[in-house]
Amino acid sequence: MSATADRDPKDIVYVNGSFLPRAQARVSVEDRGFVFGDGVYEVLRAINGKLFAARFHNQRLERSLDGVRIALEGDHSPARFVEIGRQLLKENNLLKGQATLYMQVTRGATIRAHNFPPPDVAPTVYISVARFTPYTDLAESGASAITQPDLRWARCDLKTLNLLPNVLASQTAKERGAFEAMLIRDGVVTEGTKTNFFGVVNGSLRTHPCDSHILPGITRSVLRDLARDLKIELDETPIKVSEIPKLSELFLTGTTTDVMPIVKLDDKPVGKGRPGELTRKLQRVLAESLASGGD
Amino acid sequence: MSATADRDPKDIVYVNGSFLPRAQARVSVEDRGFVFGDGVYEVLRAINGKLFAARFHNQRLERSLDGVRIALEGDHSPARFVEIGRQLLKENNLLKGQATLYMQVTRGATIRAHNFPPPDVAPTVYISVARFTPYTDLAESGASAITQPDLRWARCDLKTLNLLPNVLASQTAKERGAFEAMLIRDGVVTEGTKTNFFGVVNGSLRTHPCDSHILPGITRSVLRDLARDLKIELDETPIKVSEIPKLSELFLTGTTTDVMPIVKLDDKPVGKGRPGELTRKLQRVLAESLASGGD
Repeated sequence: MSATADRDPKDIVYVNGSFLPRAQARVSVEDRGFVFGDGVYEVLRAINGKLFAARFHNQRLERSLDGVRIALEGDHSPARFVEIGRQLLKENNLLKGQATLYMQVTRGATIRAHNFPPPDVAPTVYISVARFTPYTDLAESGASAITQPDLRWARCDLKTLNLLPNVLASQTAKERGAFEAMLIRDGVVTEGTKTNFFGVVNGSLRTHPCDSHILPGITRSVLRDLARDLKIELDETPIKVSEIPKLSELFLTGTTTDVMPIVKLDDKPVGKGRPGELTRKLQRVLAESLASGGD
Repeated sequence: MSATADRDPKDIVYVNGSFLPRAQARVSVEDRGFVFGDGVYEVLRAINGKLFAARFHNQRLERSLDGVRIALEGDHSPARFVEIGRQLLKENNLLKGQATLYMQVTRGATIRAHNFPPPDVAPTVYISVARFTPYTDLAESGASAITQPDLRWARCDLKTLNLLPNVLASQTAKERGAFEAMLIRDGVVTEGTKTNFFGVVNGSLRTHPCDSHILPGITRSVLRDLARDLKIELDETPIKVSEIPKLSELFLTGTTTDVMPIVKLDDKPVGKGRPGELTRKLQRVLAESLASGGD
């Protein structure tokens, strides 16, 4: 895999009001992120200092915060996080080229107890940036994927830190030489461990509908709009496991994945075993959208 | 609620080889516990310096570590954690009276990526103790509970840090004035957010079987053995939601909960609305077992 998140030597991050070197950025062992995974996050893409689809990421962060009932305090808001992100891009010399912006909010640090902390405990905010190199070669050749059972909870629509099932399935994929694990719940493909997916079955573009079993991906949504502009109809009827052999094209989407063709699934070729025509078309229009800065 | 986890003024905890004041105990913002909830934990009960059922907690910690594929390093092992726990009880003047011992292992701190870290990244170990006051009054009067949908993942048998669904249901219970939320999955009661449960239906003692939908509770297992000694048969057929109105007795079990009678569920009395005979009997034998130090 060609994508890497290299560290800039300066490597300044933001934690709770302070800008400081990553090596000094620490949180309490009592932080609810650390003991309960009690928080939410977003990952944004920066191209030459411009954040792609920031408005949509902000909306989704608000939605995740609401979903887990974390209320931000002081001047903290998703819009402020994006400002901090811009400052971090500048401080870390990432205004040229590509980078990712990571922002995370937890329910704060307090004596461990499942119930929410007392009102005087402020959420913990952690924001960082990293150099990003897109998966250019793999996007050209196409990647492989495996299927894995979807063991996740019933609110996958919230972008939370409870990512252990994603971690385990992703690692299994890596060990089998695959780029991603596509998750199967109740006989249908839901999404990948960190991507959504689109597939072509009998000439029709399909993906899982936005319900509580998938993350409402920003790139998924951008792609849906781009497809609509191209008069390509999207059918949000989930792809059944039994339909997998009928897939003529398959691709993943995500903030750092863009449109990634999947040419092999569970060691069997998808369609002709190379990126399909529709995949290439959507790859192109997404690249144009990214280059123009999106919204 | 009467149970509290008070802090000793000295308050020394253990993090990765160091004993230090809790206020100074910090982990990297890149710790996988903090960004992925990627870790496991145990809570043990100490009575006058003696840890109850330590052997079973150690076995379960090993099982959780195996389940999420975290390998301990150096001299770290569950047995060593218990030694460290004993040292912390001593350092924090908790050798007399009651205390809890918390031990947590995460997959370590590294550049954020779903896949497991490189082999040179050691797991993070955090161990702490706290004064504990049992829920004596509530155990006498009985407590109330509510039911909530079980939104958790498919491996609830592993004691992991992915606790957000537990946090949310527990908070809902608190806001409704209840001690615990009992979780409902596929029409049956699985367990509480931090407890197992036993119920009496038509004179028969029932609980959910140990499968991937419940945590194999240590107190649950101790209780099962104590019941067997008393020639009380335990039927591990899950209690259906439709059977809830037939419950004549109901109680929760857990390391800090002991046997907690539930006399009201979703605002309706359970049985006669007071702790039942079997509940009292099992409460007594568990108290005796705790007093004698268990295994």
